[in-house]
Amino acid sequence: MAVMAHTELAGRSPREIRQIIREGEWRRPTAGLAPGYVQTNLVILPRDLAFDFLLFCQRNPRPCPLLEVTEPGDPEPRGVVAGADLRVDLPRYRVYRDGVLAEERTDIRDLWQPDLVAFLLGCSFTFEAALIDAGIPLRHIDRGCNVSMYITSIECRPAGAFYGPMVVSMRAIRAAQVVRAVQVTSRFPGAHGAPVHVGDPRQIGIADLNRPDFGDLTAFEPGEAPVFWACGVTPQAVAMRAKPPFMITHAPGHMFLTDMRDSDLAVL
Amino acid sequence: MAVMAHTELAGRSPREIRQIIREGEWRRPTAGLAPGYVQTNLVILPRDLAFDFLLFCQRNPRPCPLLEVTEPGDPEPRGVVAGADLRVDLPRYRVYRDGVLAEERTDIRDLWQPDLVAFLLGCSFTFEAALIDAGIPLRHIDRGCNVSMYITSIECRPAGAFYGPMVVSMRAIRAAQVVRAVQVTSRFPGAHGAPVHVGDPRQIGIADLNRPDFGDLTAFEPGEAPVFWACGVTPQAVAMRAKPPFMITHAPGHMFLTDMRDSDLAVL
Repeated sequence: MAVMAHTELAGRSPREIRQIIREGEWRRPTAGLAPGYVQTNLVILPRDLAFDFLLFCQRNPRPCPLLEVTEPGDPEPRGVVAGADLRVDLPRYRVYRDGVLAEERTDIRDLWQPDLVAFLLGCSFTFEAALIDAGIPLRHIDRGCNVSMYITSIECRPAGAFYGPMVVSMRAIRAAQVVRAVQVTSRFPGAHGAPVHVGDPRQIGIADLNRPDFGDLTAFEPGEAPVFWACGVTPQAVAMRAKPPFMITHAPGHMFLTDMRDSDLAVL
Repeated sequence: MAVMAHTELAGRSPREIRQIIREGEWRRPTAGLAPGYVQTNLVILPRDLAFDFLLFCQRNPRPCPLLEVTEPGDPEPRGVVAGADLRVDLPRYRVYRDGVLAEERTDIRDLWQPDLVAFLLGCSFTFEAALIDAGIPLRHIDRGCNVSMYITSIECRPAGAFYGPMVVSMRAIRAAQVVRAVQVTSRFPGAHGAPVHVGDPRQIGIADLNRPDFGDLTAFEPGEAPVFWACGVTPQAVAMRAKPPFMITHAPGHMFLTDMRDSDLAVL
């Protein structure tokens, strides 16, 4: 599969790309597809855990900026994308059982149950596009690698069964652009929003920037500061610690494409 | 009761005022108390309706900007005000049974149950203070009366048992200050945020500005435009339509004083 090349998707609308994904012709990461449109993280849980997870998102809006919650049993996220099917419109899924990754799949229709609730969470692609628009280069994008991510000593506010540390992504920003980076990303609370920390990583429990917990190592240039944003890996890390009996997520980087524009998430 | 005068509370901290309220010495509206600190709307529901109401707030953040949800059975809103007791720290409560106002009380301790969940929602006092700081006069405050409120044709996004129309408050703003009013209130999504409409009231289903559904009539001066913000009356109106068997709210204007500063709610 994955028979299409990245260039073949250039200029396609989110709806067209979802259809291509649904037909099994795109099973790779979605970074760079349909620029200007919101992509989201996905978490699917049974109804009896949905209140706890919804409350967890409400209490931890930086790592878990909740954009949509579906009706129990309904795979169509009607509030944001009429006609989409969350069971087949993402290129790759992960299935967790008792907090352990059990399998990866490209279709979850035969796992669907009438009590499942899907949560769509904003994603860093939105604020990264805004940073680049503002003239702030992002090294991991320039180098075509993954952003550096770290488990911090910042505990999320617990909610029922869900608890755990906040995961952050780190971007090396030239000191002269740090203020602008704060301003630009503050406009997008629906996509993690403003940084949670600027500077000394030890203050948030990161012992060594050269050893990210997830993603790739980012080189620093002289005069750059580490800037940390709450990361969409947090809900997966938290859910893995909370060990719900059954949970489905997107596979990292294989996001859900919505019809919302990035600018729809801007608060100002 | 209500033995204290408004001037006696000047300069008191939210904590001191909550204590005075708890001791039964203040049972009047809280507008103007502890300026600079966030006051909130209160909704209390049984656990079995809490998911639906939490989802309703998530889907309707303009009328229902959710600041805190308590653990079932815990009357202390630990996340925002350690040591407070939501059963006695508001000057007046309303008790609804099957959607009908059954009684008003100044203490709900004997109604408390281990399955009750409290929701604290941001309140217009926060953005009104910001408007006044920005040099935008508010006629209802200058005249010491209540803001004009209207039921609109804007349907809230339903969530489970909860559905209904959005209620808006209207402020007459000089045309030259409308842009600034949008900017200033956009900074406070946790307190209803930006207006939902500017200008022609018929476009949101308001037939006659001279007949507000709640509050007092606001006079217009030449050169002023009506500006509409989502209103904290919405959740009560919605809950009354949804008719939950048991619900407690604050009495209108008799809000909960938190230790959060208004500036804590600013996104930028």
